[in-house]
Amino acid sequence: MATSQRILVVHGPNLNLLGVREPEVYGHTTLDEINRGLETQAAAAGAELRILQTNHEGVAIDAIQAAMADCVGILINPGGWTHTSVALRDALAGSGLPVVEAHLSNVHARESFRHHSYISPVALGVLCGFGARSYALGLDALLGHLKG
Amino acid sequence: MATSQRILVVHGPNLNLLGVREPEVYGHTTLDEINRGLETQAAAAGAELRILQTNHEGVAIDAIQAAMADCVGILINPGGWTHTSVALRDALAGSGLPVVEAHLSNVHARESFRHHSYISPVALGVLCGFGARSYALGLDALLGHLKG
Amino acid sequence: MATSQRILVVHGPNLNLLGVREPEVYGHTTLDEINRGLETQAAAAGAELRILQTNHEGVAIDAIQAAMADCVGILINPGGWTHTSVALRDALAGSGLPVVEAHLSNVHARESFRHHSYISPVALGVLCGFGARSYALGLDALLGHLKG
Amino acid sequence: MATSQRILVVHGPNLNLLGVREPEVYGHTTLDEINRGLETQAAAAGAELRILQTNHEGVAIDAIQAAMADCVGILINPGGWTHTSVALRDALAGSGLPVVEAHLSNVHARESFRHHSYISPVALGVLCGFGARSYALGLDALLGHLKG
Amino acid sequence: MATSQRILVVHGPNLNLLGVREPEVYGHTTLDEINRGLETQAAAAGAELRILQTNHEGVAIDAIQAAMADCVGILINPGGWTHTSVALRDALAGSGLPVVEAHLSNVHARESFRHHSYISPVALGVLCGFGARSYALGLDALLGHLKG
Amino acid sequence: MATSQRILVVHGPNLNLLGVREPEVYGHTTLDEINRGLETQAAAAGAELRILQTNHEGVAIDAIQAAMADCVGILINPGGWTHTSVALRDALAGSGLPVVEAHLSNVHARESFRHHSYISPVALGVLCGFGARSYALGLDALLGHLKG
Amino acid sequence: MATSQRILVVHGPNLNLLGVREPEVYGHTTLDEINRGLETQAAAAGAELRILQTNHEGVAIDAIQAAMADCVGILINPGGWTHTSVALRDALAGSGLPVVEAHLSNVHARESFRHHSYISPVALGVLCGFGARSYALGLDALLGHLKG
Amino acid sequence: MATSQRILVVHGPNLNLLGVREPEVYGHTTLDEINRGLETQAAAAGAELRILQTNHEGVAIDAIQAAMADCVGILINPGGWTHTSVALRDALAGSGLPVVEAHLSNVHARESFRHHSYISPVALGVLCGFGARSYALGLDALLGHLKG
Amino acid sequence: MATSQRILVVHGPNLNLLGVREPEVYGHTTLDEINRGLETQAAAAGAELRILQTNHEGVAIDAIQAAMADCVGILINPGGWTHTSVALRDALAGSGLPVVEAHLSNVHARESFRHHSYISPVALGVLCGFGARSYALGLDALLGHLKG
Amino acid sequence: MATSQRILVVHGPNLNLLGVREPEVYGHTTLDEINRGLETQAAAAGAELRILQTNHEGVAIDAIQAAMADCVGILINPGGWTHTSVALRDALAGSGLPVVEAHLSNVHARESFRHHSYISPVALGVLCGFGARSYALGLDALLGHLKG
Amino acid sequence: MATSQRILVVHGPNLNLLGVREPEVYGHTTLDEINRGLETQAAAAGAELRILQTNHEGVAIDAIQAAMADCVGILINPGGWTHTSVALRDALAGSGLPVVEAHLSNVHARESFRHHSYISPVALGVLCGFGARSYALGLDALLGHLKG
Amino acid sequence: MATSQRILVVHGPNLNLLGVREPEVYGHTTLDEINRGLETQAAAAGAELRILQTNHEGVAIDAIQAAMADCVGILINPGGWTHTSVALRDALAGSGLPVVEAHLSNVHARESFRHHSYISPVALGVLCGFGARSYALGLDALLGHLKG
Repeated sequence: MATSQRILVVHGPNLNLLGVREPEVYGHTTLDEINRGLETQAAAAGAELRILQTNHEGVAIDAIQAAMADCVGILINPGGWTHTSVALRDALAGSGLPVVEAHLSNVHARESFRHHSYISPVALGVLCGFGARSYALGLDALLGHLKG
Repeated sequence: MATSQRILVVHGPNLNLLGVREPEVYGHTTLDEINRGLETQAAAAGAELRILQTNHEGVAIDAIQAAMADCVGILINPGGWTHTSVALRDALAGSGLPVVEAHLSNVHARESFRHHSYISPVALGVLCGFGARSYALGLDALLGHLKG
Repeated sequence: MATSQRILVVHGPNLNLLGVREPEVYGHTTLDEINRGLETQAAAAGAELRILQTNHEGVAIDAIQAAMADCVGILINPGGWTHTSVALRDALAGSGLPVVEAHLSNVHARESFRHHSYISPVALGVLCGFGARSYALGLDALLGHLKG
Repeated sequence: MATSQRILVVHGPNLNLLGVREPEVYGHTTLDEINRGLETQAAAAGAELRILQTNHEGVAIDAIQAAMADCVGILINPGGWTHTSVALRDALAGSGLPVVEAHLSNVHARESFRHHSYISPVALGVLCGFGARSYALGLDALLGHLKG
Repeated sequence: MATSQRILVVHGPNLNLLGVREPEVYGHTTLDEINRGLETQAAAAGAELRILQTNHEGVAIDAIQAAMADCVGILINPGGWTHTSVALRDALAGSGLPVVEAHLSNVHARESFRHHSYISPVALGVLCGFGARSYALGLDALLGHLKG
Repeated sequence: MATSQRILVVHGPNLNLLGVREPEVYGHTTLDEINRGLETQAAAAGAELRILQTNHEGVAIDAIQAAMADCVGILINPGGWTHTSVALRDALAGSGLPVVEAHLSNVHARESFRHHSYISPVALGVLCGFGARSYALGLDALLGHLKG
Repeated sequence: MATSQRILVVHGPNLNLLGVREPEVYGHTTLDEINRGLETQAAAAGAELRILQTNHEGVAIDAIQAAMADCVGILINPGGWTHTSVALRDALAGSGLPVVEAHLSNVHARESFRHHSYISPVALGVLCGFGARSYALGLDALLGHLKG
Repeated sequence: MATSQRILVVHGPNLNLLGVREPEVYGHTTLDEINRGLETQAAAAGAELRILQTNHEGVAIDAIQAAMADCVGILINPGGWTHTSVALRDALAGSGLPVVEAHLSNVHARESFRHHSYISPVALGVLCGFGARSYALGLDALLGHLKG
Repeated sequence: MATSQRILVVHGPNLNLLGVREPEVYGHTTLDEINRGLETQAAAAGAELRILQTNHEGVAIDAIQAAMADCVGILINPGGWTHTSVALRDALAGSGLPVVEAHLSNVHARESFRHHSYISPVALGVLCGFGARSYALGLDALLGHLKG
Repeated sequence: MATSQRILVVHGPNLNLLGVREPEVYGHTTLDEINRGLETQAAAAGAELRILQTNHEGVAIDAIQAAMADCVGILINPGGWTHTSVALRDALAGSGLPVVEAHLSNVHARESFRHHSYISPVALGVLCGFGARSYALGLDALLGHLKG
Repeated sequence: MATSQRILVVHGPNLNLLGVREPEVYGHTTLDEINRGLETQAAAAGAELRILQTNHEGVAIDAIQAAMADCVGILINPGGWTHTSVALRDALAGSGLPVVEAHLSNVHARESFRHHSYISPVALGVLCGFGARSYALGLDALLGHLKG
Repeated sequence: MATSQRILVVHGPNLNLLGVREPEVYGHTTLDEINRGLETQAAAAGAELRILQTNHEGVAIDAIQAAMADCVGILINPGGWTHTSVALRDALAGSGLPVVEAHLSNVHARESFRHHSYISPVALGVLCGFGARSYALGLDALLGHLKG
């Protein structure tokens, strides 16, 4: 991967509350701490990040479409949209970019409606259950994929 | 409950058309009239309301998150999102506030897709079928819960 | 509503054990205390109540049929019959009276077989999750409906 | 069939309201009128009837068990129990008597939960949709079966 | 019913083999014997029959359409089409004539795919399980309906 | 498209009754009027039509097979076969011709069994709900497809 | 277990016919014989039994509620209610007593609707298929549980 | 098997197009070539064939019924009717003849609606996936069965 | 239709990428080209268009509500919301305007979750599979409906 | 039963960890202790046991087949295979021996996939929920069955 | 096919009991007799067989993997694994060899869980219902496929 | 994590064929290459690996049980057992060790039966779709979890 290629990182709805909301499910690390870690990790690999958190599906779709112009991959935690948004799936599939889907919690150990993802079938790969580490591993996977 | 504690009231999509849209289903009272009634009712109980109607899911989620800072409960009619929005459910559950879910019409007497609610399992309680009265009863229930 | 119109209140199976059975689910208030409260509330609205608790479906149906002659509405907590009794549904629908269905616990947050009600589609409206307050709110809703 | 053999006729829950309850669904003939007609019809065939209407499942089961001693067949409209009562099914199957199941309304043109009957698989035959005539035809069918 | 009004009787696929095919399920009476009986029964009521047996769905539909011009009702045993033919259902519903659906065997006591009928919801009424007697009772029901 | 290329138009079961059968669902225009309009429309585009209405599935399949020799496309309203005929689907798919599926009524607003079509997945496109206009639009779509 | 602690034994609907009804499914031993055996077995263990057979769900529920006052466990064969009665389940769960569910026949080898039990999830344990021995083993299991 | 016993071979809808329609699914051999091969194979075993291809379900049923008089077995490829025709199933079951069901393509590797066959449960055995060889093997199986 | 009546055209999420995104599924025509064509088509019919593309559900709902004031019909391609948005359905149904639903691709030939539409049951009619032509035909259908 | 007849006892996968693995679900008794108890119990009844614990399905099947030669019954706790192994079911059914299925925990109170057993329909009877006592009761049931 | 190419024949669990286990379902021929017949048949076609019967899924998978080195096709009766083993399916698909799946009994005429096969979608073709002849026909099919 | 703690790595059925079997799905890296990489990665983190590939479920379960004594975590690619083995799930859950489930391919983009995993609900976390990198990321995740 060329120096400083850009990766879009999308945090879906309610993820701005990380470290605040239901810490017994999602852990105590804040989104800011996670983002700082990802930026360091990206820089070390010669990449840069465009990071977005939004509770608005339309904003996420706009950003994914924009990424087609100047990003080489997408790391996304679609939060609650995972299970309900065909529009988001279509945006990701339509972008033509490799997509890594990451979840903090192990969605398969929660309510059954969280077992199905509209995003997974159009993603390169999926990770869940490792808390904040899911993001770092996902970025690692994406960077690795782009390199090889 | 201390004097003037604040309650967030959220009216979901299309509820701005109350009294206009399909009155045979939803009745003739306008949303404004409902809101005035709720404010009077709240004031009588020494509470105040922050009222929001929006057709934008993201706006509703933002408001619910904000309520964590300065509200003590949420009264919500999630409209069409009731049956489709995990993001809204996560926002409500994540807020840690008691939530009352109210519907104007008896959703169980309508199309089968309206019989399932993503919101109900994370709500304190649910009401439906009493028209504008559903709101008043829901506020009453929430105030009662906060008191005792 | 004319002075002293009568409302039938039906408590279904096992509700005689309120305050005794599984208080972590149903609360500590006894059925007697609830009934006294409802009677006071009805009296204040110029109505009177005929209250029945029974573990026998047939007794409940007989009472609902009898109410056609001298009651103006029905407030019912069908308990376990909610999910299994078409006969009760037919009795309520056949009575031609407005029916309010009330549950102490939030049935949507319990086992999935409790999410479906045979009664709801023939009821005026439904409430659940507010403990003993569900009854008071339900009576309020019914009285309001009868008035307007 | 020998002269004056006895047939048990069971009318299930709410059928005592025939002619009163929802006449647009069930017609205007009263249960009494139906029973008189059936008795005349039975007498003409040299049979006699034991007729029971009850809203109590247990009473119906007791009567079916008793019929094993002194009846040669059963004509039953199980009403709402049709769709919910395994106990009734077991009583009918256990009686060893030929059973005819009759419904006033065409259950297949109503709510989908009325399309399934626990009784039908253990019945000799089933009729529905002919109003009060369903009973007469059902008795005719049963008498015919008993004859040959 | 006026003298000699005509009723269409349709026997669906394989019913020409009655008395030959699987007598343990369908009995030993031949279709011809059944038809003779029905004609006698109709004549006694001042009606006449147009009887058709066909293994060709299109022929049955043509006949049902033709009946609109000169018949007052339809008695049909749709055989295997019962469970599979929307076209037949549409023809019957489109005819505007009262339809009685009759089956020799008790379809509810057989394979589960025989429990659903596309025809029943558009029929006046349904009978099954009485062998050849199902036809006689069905004709009786239809004649009764036309009279009253 | 060359001058006078031929298009097969197939009207499935019961469509000969258009204008007669259930006009509240299908409108008052007769099939003949529709066919005349389609012929005019085709002629204007330099095409000609072979029009078939049949209540016999086999006749429709034979015609579709024959169209392989001398037609360039198929416009079909499969009527009740839409939901039940794999044989028709196989004939259409096997013809190798572009197929447009048209329905007079909005099938998605009717009984749930009408929501599934065996034909749609092998069609070029599908239209429904525009009454007789569905045919004209479907022919337009087919002609447009053949041109470009 | 202290000397002469009491156990409630409930036989559900139709079990009074044991030895009479369908012996090829349920065996030839009568209910009386079974009850005598159970009493002997209980006495040997220093316990006593309160035995009830009823075809009335309400009577069973009343007895289960009463057992809370003076029994230490419940042995029940819910018969046909097994698959249909939430009210019975609630009564058993609400009693707080250990419950053993026993069936004479192997319900898993019978109709599929007999494979689901509303009772099992609130029982201590379940036995089926051993005929009259199911009761003896169930009492044994309950006595063993109470001892240790 | 006696010399020259007759076997009915039925090719269902669209199979007349073999070698023409979708050769990538069904192969390039024509139906005529297949039939010639089967006749040779039958003759070698001292049997003769009556071969029918039809797109008309009624014609197939008529032929199956006729085979009861003068054939000893049936080899059938029901094509699209496999998944939709109860009437065909009833005809085959009613014939009392051994039936072998053969498919050219591996139906289990195609659309899910092709995985269910109404015919298989009443067949002696089933083959699929071997192209034209499916017929030869099927005839072989039938001849073998008839011999032993 | 009066001169210059206005029609709202709504393009849902990701449709701004037409001609860019997955052209093998959606074709090469851009949204702008489609809009220009629709405007020409509308003008020729004496109508004018208000055209909106948005990735934000709330924006679409707002526009649909606004159309109640000054439009006479709606042409909508709901994109991914088709399968997930009850809020959009409610907005369209609540508008009281005739709605035509158009899809570029044949949704029935794609993933199974695209076979269900929340919009279709409240639309006048539906079209899919004709690429950009779906819009033109849909506008034609809407204009035709408004005229007659 | 003759002296010293042999019974095969099969403990399925992971049961070697009894007393170690998840004691809150399975209790603290070790498998060895259970086996000692069963041997004592068998000896008292004049029987002997062949005991096998294995995590290998094939080993269990081999042992069951071998038991046909020298055992008179099988007591099995199939563990996780209960819900997934048709091969084990076939081995048990094919052995022709009476089979008792025993589970330590109440499988009906655990994950829903544990509610279905492939083994139960071919077993004589089933027990669950009594901890180590399930085995003792199961052996008792089997010995009782063999005796009478 | 070259002289003496090798074919792997796999008999799954319990098939070693052929001729012993449930002969009314599987026939009286022993596995040895079947294997002798297959070897003769193979030899006649210039092929040789490697035959394996095992009750151990892992052994079967190992053998299938080994066959990649020195076999040209696989004939398998997966027995009970048919319905439960994705691992076996993956082994067969991964081998790249043509696979013929054969069953002695007509699985479609047995329990519904036997109607689904994980193996069929990755097989060349499938046969069932012809007893020991299923193997001979399957080998014939495989040899035929390898030749042409 | 202390120096040289041991981690069990389990490769399920058919994974020994990596780099050979279906490389378009699973890539070209061999299992040996993957294992070498994992060992290097573990060593760098001061851990050591016990690596097992097996096609025998029982062998995998034995190894998982053994790991309880001397390992601190498990990395597993359960292959085809993912979707079918409750026994494996119970072994993993019973081990009390943190489990990471890794898949080479994106199982959510494959056949629907691969979308459900019995293992995931008892795993710490899950990864899929990154080819050989899935293992490296999974080991990374497990080491990270053990550290913090």
